[in-house]
Amino acid sequence: MAVYTEITDDELQAFVSSYDIGKVSSCKGIAEGVENSNYLLQTTSNTYILTLYEKRVLPADLPFFLGLMDHLAARGIACPTPIHDRDGVTLRELAGRPAAIISFLSGLWIRRPRPDNCVRLGEAMAALHKAGQDFGMRRPNNLSLDGWRELLAATGPRADQVQIGLRCELEEEVADLETIWPKSLPSGVIHADLFPDNVFFLDDRLSGLIDFYFACNDFFAYDIAICLNAWCFEPDGSFNVTKARMLLAGYIKARPLSADELGALPILARGAAVRFLLTRLYDLLNHVEGALVRPKDPLEYLQRLRFHRGVRSPAEYGLDELV
Amino acid sequence: MAVYTEITDDELQAFVSSYDIGKVSSCKGIAEGVENSNYLLQTTSNTYILTLYEKRVLPADLPFFLGLMDHLAARGIACPTPIHDRDGVTLRELAGRPAAIISFLSGLWIRRPRPDNCVRLGEAMAALHKAGQDFGMRRPNNLSLDGWRELLAATGPRADQVQIGLRCELEEEVADLETIWPKSLPSGVIHADLFPDNVFFLDDRLSGLIDFYFACNDFFAYDIAICLNAWCFEPDGSFNVTKARMLLAGYIKARPLSADELGALPILARGAAVRFLLTRLYDLLNHVEGALVRPKDPLEYLQRLRFHRGVRSPAEYGLDELV
Repeated sequence: MAVYTEITDDELQAFVSSYDIGKVSSCKGIAEGVENSNYLLQTTSNTYILTLYEKRVLPADLPFFLGLMDHLAARGIACPTPIHDRDGVTLRELAGRPAAIISFLSGLWIRRPRPDNCVRLGEAMAALHKAGQDFGMRRPNNLSLDGWRELLAATGPRADQVQIGLRCELEEEVADLETIWPKSLPSGVIHADLFPDNVFFLDDRLSGLIDFYFACNDFFAYDIAICLNAWCFEPDGSFNVTKARMLLAGYIKARPLSADELGALPILARGAAVRFLLTRLYDLLNHVEGALVRPKDPLEYLQRLRFHRGVRSPAEYGLDELV
Repeated sequence: MAVYTEITDDELQAFVSSYDIGKVSSCKGIAEGVENSNYLLQTTSNTYILTLYEKRVLPADLPFFLGLMDHLAARGIACPTPIHDRDGVTLRELAGRPAAIISFLSGLWIRRPRPDNCVRLGEAMAALHKAGQDFGMRRPNNLSLDGWRELLAATGPRADQVQIGLRCELEEEVADLETIWPKSLPSGVIHADLFPDNVFFLDDRLSGLIDFYFACNDFFAYDIAICLNAWCFEPDGSFNVTKARMLLAGYIKARPLSADELGALPILARGAAVRFLLTRLYDLLNHVEGALVRPKDPLEYLQRLRFHRGVRSPAEYGLDELV
């Protein structure tokens, strides 16, 4: 659930009048995106998303995010496109906050992804990775190795309040990953948060990828690892190897994976599990009573982490039939 | 801020397929209406509001609310119209709750109403009162006299936590109103909650009235009294007589007020102030920490109540120049 900055009708109309998008006919705060205030803006010409960037997004990162969406959309990726005002500017200010108007994408997110959704996801992710290769800006992944160490320092002392032994298990895991984490793999711009609620479908067709506010430069295969965690586990915690195989099959049609990338998947998947386990743990431990955002369960990701630790070969992700 | 019931994409598509409104292209929870879950639903044919009725609305009242909107819209009132499914039904069930699809109204609500907005409000309210006269169902106003006594019993013992002396002042006021409340005035269907956020404008034109979930049968002039409180006081608590005059001028163009109605306005305005003071007090005293709805300040309405108690003649509402 998002936060909302109150915008007066006068402010809004003045803001929109700088764009060639018609006049405001409606604007409603929507319950989407936990980091920002998002509004569904209807004008006499079209439907848009109006985003006000709240404090969890660093203003210095906004040109990267908006520039990336612009770049990807120009290369045919179905993603939100920042609208340029009459001076060509995409990042402006409204109600005292950085703000942008973004194109609206149709589609619903799939609450219970099926294997065919995973094929479409794999295809779209590979297309995204390829389209980002000539993007001119860079943003390091601050939620990779270095970030985990920092999150561990902030959460470790209270981690055992959530589950006895969690601190010790996480410390060993991060130490392990620091030793075995790949030094070099094919890299570029990754989405880094391709959870089901960020992927829209219309019927069986993938209609768009949204929420690029964690995008960064990192190993392409790490993006796959994030999706293995987010799309291929069932509510009971079991790993659905068919979905994983479909996801990878979709991906390698557009961008073949090297032997190094395939071999690194179990380690990358452990890292991806640690990343979401730590941020969820941080959010839970620092949850303000009465805040609008309900914290997600970190322990889901402990279960996934343990699963990947038990994986001996990438074949266990369903790869044996693919490569 | 609204609550949200989670709807799966499958449930939603099955639900929408019973209507002749095309296929779902998008559905987003919106931050509107504190009583229900509201979604902005886009289909291949149009934009709609999907409402799931949560526990604060009595299911037995829903046929009245939906029937009234249907009735008023058919008589040219710019208000949401319930969409009928292929069997002609408007009230159905989704995700275990009563649910309806309603037409979408363009417009923005005015954060700082101007006098000309008040003219439009008066006109629209009078038109609503006239259009409701041949509506066949009835719903008593459970937030009038009897309701206040009940709310007072529930809030009185803790009212002084909010302001010392509040309990005593409210008890005297309700006792007074029980004695002097009009026995008979022109009556019919009233909206009973025409606050600025329930009235949409496009430029200077009133484009719609929404949120009929407090509508009931009561004195027409009581609806005016509610609006005098909701539209004609400035943020500093002062009464803006120009706005009141404009509101009444707009109203009487379409529906003249009798001498009895005019004379009763100060008493009705006291009653309207007591109604919102008591419900806000109740919500504040029963606020659950962490709930999504932020309680509104009851004391705003104490100030208004005291103002109306000092009014000696309806001329003080700017009526002297009108009648």
